[in-house]
Amino acid sequence: MSLIEQAQRTAQAAQGLATQSTIAKNQALEAIAQALEAHAEAILEANHQDCVRSQGLASALYARLKLDEQKLTGAIAGVRSVAALTDPVGEVQIYRELDAGLILKRVSCPLGVLGVIFEARPDAVIQISALAVKSGNGALLKGGQEALATCQAISKAIQAGLAQTSISPEAIALLTSREETLELLKLDQYVNLIIPRGSNSFVRFVQDNTRIPVLGHAEGICHLYIDRAANLTQAIPIAVDSKTQYPAACNAIETLLVHQDIAPTALPELVAALQAKGVSLRGDTSTRQVVDLEPATAEDWATEYGDLTLSIGIVDSVEAAIAHINTYGSGHTDAIVTEDEATAALFLANVDAAGVFQNCSTRFADGFRYGFGAEVGISTQQMPPRGPVGLEGLVTYKYQLQGSGHIVATYSGSEAKPFTHQDLPK
Amino acid sequence: MSLIEQAQRTAQAAQGLATQSTIAKNQALEAIAQALEAHAEAILEANHQDCVRSQGLASALYARLKLDEQKLTGAIAGVRSVAALTDPVGEVQIYRELDAGLILKRVSCPLGVLGVIFEARPDAVIQISALAVKSGNGALLKGGQEALATCQAISKAIQAGLAQTSISPEAIALLTSREETLELLKLDQYVNLIIPRGSNSFVRFVQDNTRIPVLGHAEGICHLYIDRAANLTQAIPIAVDSKTQYPAACNAIETLLVHQDIAPTALPELVAALQAKGVSLRGDTSTRQVVDLEPATAEDWATEYGDLTLSIGIVDSVEAAIAHINTYGSGHTDAIVTEDEATAALFLANVDAAGVFQNCSTRFADGFRYGFGAEVGISTQQMPPRGPVGLEGLVTYKYQLQGSGHIVATYSGSEAKPFTHQDLPK
Repeated sequence: MSLIEQAQRTAQAAQGLATQSTIAKNQALEAIAQALEAHAEAILEANHQDCVRSQGLASALYARLKLDEQKLTGAIAGVRSVAALTDPVGEVQIYRELDAGLILKRVSCPLGVLGVIFEARPDAVIQISALAVKSGNGALLKGGQEALATCQAISKAIQAGLAQTSISPEAIALLTSREETLELLKLDQYVNLIIPRGSNSFVRFVQDNTRIPVLGHAEGICHLYIDRAANLTQAIPIAVDSKTQYPAACNAIETLLVHQDIAPTALPELVAALQAKGVSLRGDTSTRQVVDLEPATAEDWATEYGDLTLSIGIVDSVEAAIAHINTYGSGHTDAIVTEDEATAALFLANVDAAGVFQNCSTRFADGFRYGFGAEVGISTQQMPPRGPVGLEGLVTYKYQLQGSGHIVATYSGSEAKPFTHQDLPK
Repeated sequence: MSLIEQAQRTAQAAQGLATQSTIAKNQALEAIAQALEAHAEAILEANHQDCVRSQGLASALYARLKLDEQKLTGAIAGVRSVAALTDPVGEVQIYRELDAGLILKRVSCPLGVLGVIFEARPDAVIQISALAVKSGNGALLKGGQEALATCQAISKAIQAGLAQTSISPEAIALLTSREETLELLKLDQYVNLIIPRGSNSFVRFVQDNTRIPVLGHAEGICHLYIDRAANLTQAIPIAVDSKTQYPAACNAIETLLVHQDIAPTALPELVAALQAKGVSLRGDTSTRQVVDLEPATAEDWATEYGDLTLSIGIVDSVEAAIAHINTYGSGHTDAIVTEDEATAALFLANVDAAGVFQNCSTRFADGFRYGFGAEVGISTQQMPPRGPVGLEGLVTYKYQLQGSGHIVATYSGSEAKPFTHQDLPK
C-alpha cells in the first residue's frame, strides 16, 4: 500500500472515530491497554532485537530506544490515565441566539489525522495513540528505522485491541515502508497536525519542511533573572532547581541574569550552590569581576546547552533583563525572582514568552504540573496553542447554526431586521 | 529605511502598545477617527489621483480602489465601533492553584506585529489599523502600487492621530518602498500573523510563500444539500439566498445537492426560482433527466464561480451528500435543509467544515452576523481560529505562574508532594 493510500484509509477511519462517544473511546483505550499487556513479551523481545541491531547508536538515542518492562508498564498505565481524562470533543464554547429560532453553537471537534514522527522512543507510539483515540483523531505514526521491530509489535497490539471495539484499527497506522519523512510532511490533504518527537534539530527540520501545522518547539532557551529586590533565600534554590533538576529538559535555564546591585552579594552564593551541583559556569565581563569563571561570549546567550552548563550575565535594570530575554530567548519560559510587585508586573507583562514566572522554578512549565492531565507537547509558536499543550491542542471547533428557513436577505438592506445576539446558558 | 529596520521599529513600538490600557487604546482610536476626518479632503484627492492613474484596471479591482466620501465616512465610523468592542487583551482564561501559594494564570495578550497585505482597497488600511490598535498589535501594511497615494494619505492621518496619544505612531507603518511582498513574507522574526486581503489567487500565493501563520482562506466552495425530508417552503428561499444574496461572497454556494427522492418535485421549483434571479445552472446526468440544463462536469464540483453560476447534483442519501462535500468542499460553510433531526445530526457531525448549518442560508457565515462585532477574516484552516474570526484571532495567551520560592524538586521523586490543581474563581 502506498503512503497516500494508507493516509486515505486512516482519514476514512478517523471520520468514524470522530463521532464515537466518550464511553466507546474509553472502552477502546482499555482494550488497547489489555492488548499491550497480552503482547508485552513480544514487544520486549522485538525491542531487544532493535537494541542489538543498534549498538552503534549515540547513548542518548539508545536510552530512548530501549524499552524495558518498567517503561512498558508505565506506558500502559498512561493509556488508562488518558481514559480518565475529560473528553475534549463536544465542548460547547459558544451558545448564542442570533435571532428568534436561529441558534449558533461553537462545538469542539477532532482535527482529523495526526502525523506523528519520532526518533527512537517507541513508547511514544503508545502514548500518542492513546491521546489520538481520546481526542477522536486518526494517527499516522512514522518511527525511525532503529525502532522498527518494537514499533511493529506495539502497533500490532494496538490494532488487536481496537479490533475488539467499535473503532476501526485503521485509525492508527504505523508507516513501516521506506518512505521518507518528507513524504508524510507533504500530505497536507490528509494530515492536519504534525507532532515531531525528537531532538531540537529534528523538530527544526520538520518545521522547515511542511505546510502542515507543527506542534512542538525546536529550542528552549529559558532565563532566570534575579532582581535587586530578590529574596536570596528563594533565589538560590530556584536557580539550582531551574538548572539542575533535569538539565536536559527544554524548561531548564540556559542563562542566569543578575541585577548589578545584588551581584556582589548574590553571585558568590549562587556560584557556590550551582558548582556544588556540578554546573559548569560561564560569565560576562561584569560577572567575572565578581567571581572567577570562564568567559561567556555572545554565542552563549543564544545556545541551548541541554546539560549542566549555564551562562551568567549582569544587567543594570529589569528593563535590560527583559530586553536581553526578548532578544535571545526562545519564547519558552522565563522567570524573575523579586519581592517588588511593580517590577514583577513589568516583567510578566513585557517578556514575550509562553511562560512568565515569578519566584518559582522554570521547571514548572509542563502540562502535567499545570494540571492538564496529559501533555501533547510544548509549543513556542506565538499563535495558540502556546506553551504546554494538553488534549485541547488535538481538537478544533466548528460552528453549527440551526434555523427554520432563516435567510440573510431578512437582515440586510434598508429594512434590515436586527440580530438579537443573546448568549444562552450552556 | 530598509524593510527590516522598519519591522524592528514597529516591533519595538508594538511592545509599548501591548501593555496599554483599554482606555488609552480607545482614546487612540478616537484620535485616529478625528485625524481621518481632518484629513478627509487630502485622502479623497489622493484617491482621485490613484484612480486616474489606474484607468486600465479590471473593473472589480477598480471598484475596490475607488474611495468616495461615503466609503470613507463608513470606514471612520468603523474605527469608532472598534473602540466600542470588548478589549480582547487581559482575559483570564485559566486561574488555578497548583499548590498552596503557587498560582497559575493564563492571560490573553497581543500577538506582536501583524503583516497586512492587500490588493487595492485602501479602506482596509483604516479597518485593520483600528483592529490592530484595539488588540494591542503593531501592523506593517503593504498595499498595491495602484493605491499608493491613498494609502500614504490615510497612513499620514493615522500617524497624526496617534501622535496625539500615548501610543507610538511607529506601531502602524505603511510600507511604501518597492520591496516585494515576498520580503515581508520572510520576516518571520518580526511578523507574527499575515492577513492577506484580496483575490483567492492572491491569498493562495501568500499562503504558499510564508512560514508565518496566515489568517484567511483561498477558497469558499460552499454547498447546500436539500434532503428528502426537506421543507420545500424553506428550501427554495434558502437556496436563492445562499446563491444570490451576494454571489461574489465566499459564503455563497457553488453547488446544490438534492436527494433523489425529492428531486422530481423539488428541482423544477428550485430551477425556476434560481433562474428568475438570473442564476446560470448546470446539472449532473441525473439532474438533467428531470430538468433541462447545461451539463456539469467533475471540474464544476471543485470550482468557486464567485458569480451567478451554480451546479446541481443528485445524491441518493445524506451519506452521499456528506461524502461529496468532504471531497470537493473547501471547509468553509455547508448547509442541509431537512426536518429529520437524525439526518441533520449526522450532517452536522460529519461534514468537515468551519460552518455546518441546518435550515438556514450559508450567507450567515460572517463575524458580524455571529455577533463578534468585527471580522478580522474567515479562516478555512483546520486549527483554530477557524471560520469567521473576530478580535480574538489577533491575540494569543501566556501562562503566568507566581510562587514564593517553589521548586520542582519538592514535587518529584519518591516523596513527591502532590499538586492541589484547584481552579479558583476568576
